[in-house]
Amino acid sequence: MDTIVQEATSMQPLNLLDYEALAGKRMGHIPWAWGYYQGGSEDEVSLRANRAAFEQLRLRPRMLVKVSTCDLRTSVLGTSVSMPILVAPTAGHGLAHPDAECATARAVQQAGTLMIVSTQSTRSLEEIAQVGQCPRWFQLYIDSYRQAEHLVRRAEAAGYGALVLTVDTPRRGNRERDMRNDLGRHLEAYAPSVGNGNASPLMERSSNGGETSLTDTLTWEILPWLRSITKLPVLLKGILTAEDARLALVEAVAGRCEVYVDGGVRRGTDVLKALACGARAVLLGRPILWGLAVNGEVGVHHVLQLLRAELELAMALAGCPTLGGITRSLVR
Amino acid sequence: MDTIVQEATSMQPLNLLDYEALAGKRMGHIPWAWGYYQGGSEDEVSLRANRAAFEQLRLRPRMLVKVSTCDLRTSVLGTSVSMPILVAPTAGHGLAHPDAECATARAVQQAGTLMIVSTQSTRSLEEIAQVGQCPRWFQLYIDSYRQAEHLVRRAEAAGYGALVLTVDTPRRGNRERDMRNDLGRHLEAYAPSVGNGNASPLMERSSNGGETSLTDTLTWEILPWLRSITKLPVLLKGILTAEDARLALVEAVAGRCEVYVDGGVRRGTDVLKALACGARAVLLGRPILWGLAVNGEVGVHHVLQLLRAELELAMALAGCPTLGGITRSLVR
Amino acid sequence: MDTIVQEATSMQPLNLLDYEALAGKRMGHIPWAWGYYQGGSEDEVSLRANRAAFEQLRLRPRMLVKVSTCDLRTSVLGTSVSMPILVAPTAGHGLAHPDAECATARAVQQAGTLMIVSTQSTRSLEEIAQVGQCPRWFQLYIDSYRQAEHLVRRAEAAGYGALVLTVDTPRRGNRERDMRNDLGRHLEAYAPSVGNGNASPLMERSSNGGETSLTDTLTWEILPWLRSITKLPVLLKGILTAEDARLALVEAVAGRCEVYVDGGVRRGTDVLKALACGARAVLLGRPILWGLAVNGEVGVHHVLQLLRAELELAMALAGCPTLGGITRSLVR
Amino acid sequence: MDTIVQEATSMQPLNLLDYEALAGKRMGHIPWAWGYYQGGSEDEVSLRANRAAFEQLRLRPRMLVKVSTCDLRTSVLGTSVSMPILVAPTAGHGLAHPDAECATARAVQQAGTLMIVSTQSTRSLEEIAQVGQCPRWFQLYIDSYRQAEHLVRRAEAAGYGALVLTVDTPRRGNRERDMRNDLGRHLEAYAPSVGNGNASPLMERSSNGGETSLTDTLTWEILPWLRSITKLPVLLKGILTAEDARLALVEAVAGRCEVYVDGGVRRGTDVLKALACGARAVLLGRPILWGLAVNGEVGVHHVLQLLRAELELAMALAGCPTLGGITRSLVR
Repeated sequence: MDTIVQEATSMQPLNLLDYEALAGKRMGHIPWAWGYYQGGSEDEVSLRANRAAFEQLRLRPRMLVKVSTCDLRTSVLGTSVSMPILVAPTAGHGLAHPDAECATARAVQQAGTLMIVSTQSTRSLEEIAQVGQCPRWFQLYIDSYRQAEHLVRRAEAAGYGALVLTVDTPRRGNRERDMRNDLGRHLEAYAPSVGNGNASPLMERSSNGGETSLTDTLTWEILPWLRSITKLPVLLKGILTAEDARLALVEAVAGRCEVYVDGGVRRGTDVLKALACGARAVLLGRPILWGLAVNGEVGVHHVLQLLRAELELAMALAGCPTLGGITRSLVR
Repeated sequence: MDTIVQEATSMQPLNLLDYEALAGKRMGHIPWAWGYYQGGSEDEVSLRANRAAFEQLRLRPRMLVKVSTCDLRTSVLGTSVSMPILVAPTAGHGLAHPDAECATARAVQQAGTLMIVSTQSTRSLEEIAQVGQCPRWFQLYIDSYRQAEHLVRRAEAAGYGALVLTVDTPRRGNRERDMRNDLGRHLEAYAPSVGNGNASPLMERSSNGGETSLTDTLTWEILPWLRSITKLPVLLKGILTAEDARLALVEAVAGRCEVYVDGGVRRGTDVLKALACGARAVLLGRPILWGLAVNGEVGVHHVLQLLRAELELAMALAGCPTLGGITRSLVR
Repeated sequence: MDTIVQEATSMQPLNLLDYEALAGKRMGHIPWAWGYYQGGSEDEVSLRANRAAFEQLRLRPRMLVKVSTCDLRTSVLGTSVSMPILVAPTAGHGLAHPDAECATARAVQQAGTLMIVSTQSTRSLEEIAQVGQCPRWFQLYIDSYRQAEHLVRRAEAAGYGALVLTVDTPRRGNRERDMRNDLGRHLEAYAPSVGNGNASPLMERSSNGGETSLTDTLTWEILPWLRSITKLPVLLKGILTAEDARLALVEAVAGRCEVYVDGGVRRGTDVLKALACGARAVLLGRPILWGLAVNGEVGVHHVLQLLRAELELAMALAGCPTLGGITRSLVR
Repeated sequence: MDTIVQEATSMQPLNLLDYEALAGKRMGHIPWAWGYYQGGSEDEVSLRANRAAFEQLRLRPRMLVKVSTCDLRTSVLGTSVSMPILVAPTAGHGLAHPDAECATARAVQQAGTLMIVSTQSTRSLEEIAQVGQCPRWFQLYIDSYRQAEHLVRRAEAAGYGALVLTVDTPRRGNRERDMRNDLGRHLEAYAPSVGNGNASPLMERSSNGGETSLTDTLTWEILPWLRSITKLPVLLKGILTAEDARLALVEAVAGRCEVYVDGGVRRGTDVLKALACGARAVLLGRPILWGLAVNGEVGVHHVLQLLRAELELAMALAGCPTLGGITRSLVR
């Protein structure tokens, strides 16, 4: 990997932010795709707010604790993973690398963690399942009951262990950067189809700032319906208030609730802070795409290893050799 | 519209801030007029404080609510409007476009909302009433009882539905930018008369930083006097404290109080936040002038449509398909 | 004045900050003197902290109050002044203008307010008293009992109405800007003597960062001593804590305490905020020197008039036509 | 000194920040060494956080206190020092100056304060003890019990008065700046051995971001062990929480606890604030290296004198002529 990277930039990436810089250079010839990866809605304040939230939390490290071995293994919904860092669902990995989600899945397998595959993957969910023997969950957009049930069946057949229902995008945000880049036209030329068989939802969802409504009729009643058609556990992605968390709990098995933090994780100390605040694990989104763009499977694996090493070091310096020892008192 | 705009800047405006940039270019040959539109008092801290206030409020979106149809219709003082976005009174639209307030009124009519016409309009209140079949209110400066009564009679005759009494400018602020631009001299040459027949109040009010006192003797007793000469409802524009709001309530019909937020609204999320804080509607000032400067009636209409679409999307993403569902708990 | 100013910069000063810019140009040939006027101690954080303190206070204006006449007259220690803006003691006006404190005193007289003359004035306290028929207080540094008693006698004879004892500089701060500018050497060549007969204290006090100790043995016992040698009222300049304010009250006539705010006042709204926080008046320091540098007596008078007009306008816009109506509820 | 410094930069250093600038120029030919001195871990936020913490504390000076003589003498663990400013343990002074820790020790002796010698010093602890007759403590990394006991015996024999056990680096932080500078390779060529006989720990500890674990098995049980092998007092360096401070107190002689502040001290007011918060003394790290790089022994001495003069002035201006008078009420 070093050789390839150094040809491009003569810089050896030491952390996830280095990968961001390198990926930006790699994708310089398709600025619309880079904009699609990097952009947020309207004034893009949420991206900055996420980072600020992590930075405002300060760690309170404890000393003289034996930290010669730090154990990062945990389980998510009963599935063992090597660390509390999962791969978030992100669309269209094929924009970053020709091996697309297949490269990502192989890297995730090697890192011993779990991948959430997007409905809008470049490769089909079955192909991804074949190449990557890692635990996999499937992220579901519900455009119609019939299509959703079909996708659920395919995910079950391909061995996906859970469904992740994205609930915070009843409509697409106003991705103005994509509009200025004329993303829709580019996608049509560049990536006319997506892996899971539906007509290019990537385009539909990004082209016109919310006018095509796909999932905006969903209510909490979707959960009993999902449960009626599958035995797979269902996760809700995008809960932002305690009120909704309470509603979600009523639906869940009594007393059991795993919270995942998604958005803005760039450093091992971010992961540690999220865990201290009560998260079971974090989801890593954009940095996976950066690793993929820079060096395919090897890049994704390196990104995961860098963040794992940072988390392990952060745990050691904070005096927390086990995940169980990470409590609210670790941050202020 | 696209063609015209793109000739000017090759940029398709996607939001109100784009219109600001375009209008600045359009009005580049009359910098004093642009300064008059854009400037505030002294160090111009209020403009920035307004924006900061909106940005500090954070939305708390609720999920899994059916938002396929969002209803933006509401009423203000009993008048139906298509959305809780009204046009604030601003002076001298003729500086932005030769069709002046007539263009604005036609755009407002098309957008189905309400326009508050300024005492200091370029066109007469009667002319504006003729071309724009939208609901209209008339903003009143009281320079003398006799002149005010005359204006009220004209507003009644022309079908204006309410009077808006501006109470926060007993004197003009120190508009130093205007003084540096020698605004008074420019206005004299460029716009020697204004629509409502009084000698150019635009000049009088802006030329010398408050030395000519026009309305600085008004007290709460103005309200019974106004009520004695007209049946039109009276709104107070500029109340800034709870103490004054209480005083105003005593005057109002028992229990009824509609609050409008004026200043700094640039995004649909701003409107949503204002509504969550208890506002009945927001008033849109400068962005209307930007739209007017860029493309006349079409520009104003596009500005209103952009903000409407942003509000509608913000409501959908926040899980609030109706205005009635927007409560204080939506923001923190 | 306009002509002279416009020769220099073609800019007509509209506020105190304009005067700062103009004065900086005027004094460009003696940067060490400009540095002496503008600098603070070490990292100069206090200057910025003063401004930030004013900016963090927000006004809460009340509406529909008759403000056609605003009365700014007040009294300080029983002496009538035209407004709650006094001239702070600052050293060496001769660096700004050849007429030095004589020009300042004439402008203060014309403005109807009060001047506090510094021990370190360029002109003698008697000469200043002769030309300026304004109320005057004398600011006393106590280097020795004998010298202090001599200065007090001279101040009494020249009609000074009170003594202002500076208590916050037992030693000079580390004025690093002055050290870098080699201020001591410049002052020796430029201003070898000061008006009040003592060997150049300006130099002594500024040359070496606090090693020459002048007044660092003073304790609260200085107050009974001062009272034993003079009937003049004594003010303490530099009290920063409630604890010291309580100590000072014991010394003062029972129940009577006038608080003045010194430092950072640049706008009429600053004055209004200080009054709302309980100050009897503000002291204006550097801006007086700027006015003096730009245009001598006329410049100082214009500075005072500008700030007066801004205060008057701020009172009108806040709904406070009298100083008595300015209370803590005006700010948050 | 002046001559040498002025050759380099024509700037006479007035404060510690000037020394930082000068040292940066001096060490320009070995940027990796400068990076090693200046860098922190990962995003280097701790450095900025330390400065911000000092700046957020505001002093509350008291007036009319006799401050003609300020007494800065104190004792640390019973050892008299001329001021509450000690020299923190920092590695490899040889990178800054050929006389290395010997120059530092002579300057510390001249300044009458105390030096904490690092395990990773360029010169041996015995050589440093011979040239510097100042009180000395020895900072201990425990890589193995055998090596640690050997170092303790040597420190005892050389007259070191206490042991300082660094507890906040069970592993080295991710010093990314050092990795980018390829520090390990440079150190191998430039400084193949260190003074205290162990194979270059400077390199081991800095080369690979925490993979070589040296002291990460230590627990609170190290304290009874240390006490079993030596009568020297033991200090813990790196306690960051009240919880750990309580644990440390149990180990300490009943009721006795001296707290030192380490990190970010640049101004006399910083020292004063630290003392007001309860510190017995501050430790000065990087600025000592800056002084050493600029002018060897003379530079270190000047740095200590500058900070001493600033502290003395800060005490005088705050109305605190004795260290005993510095209490929590001095800051807010």
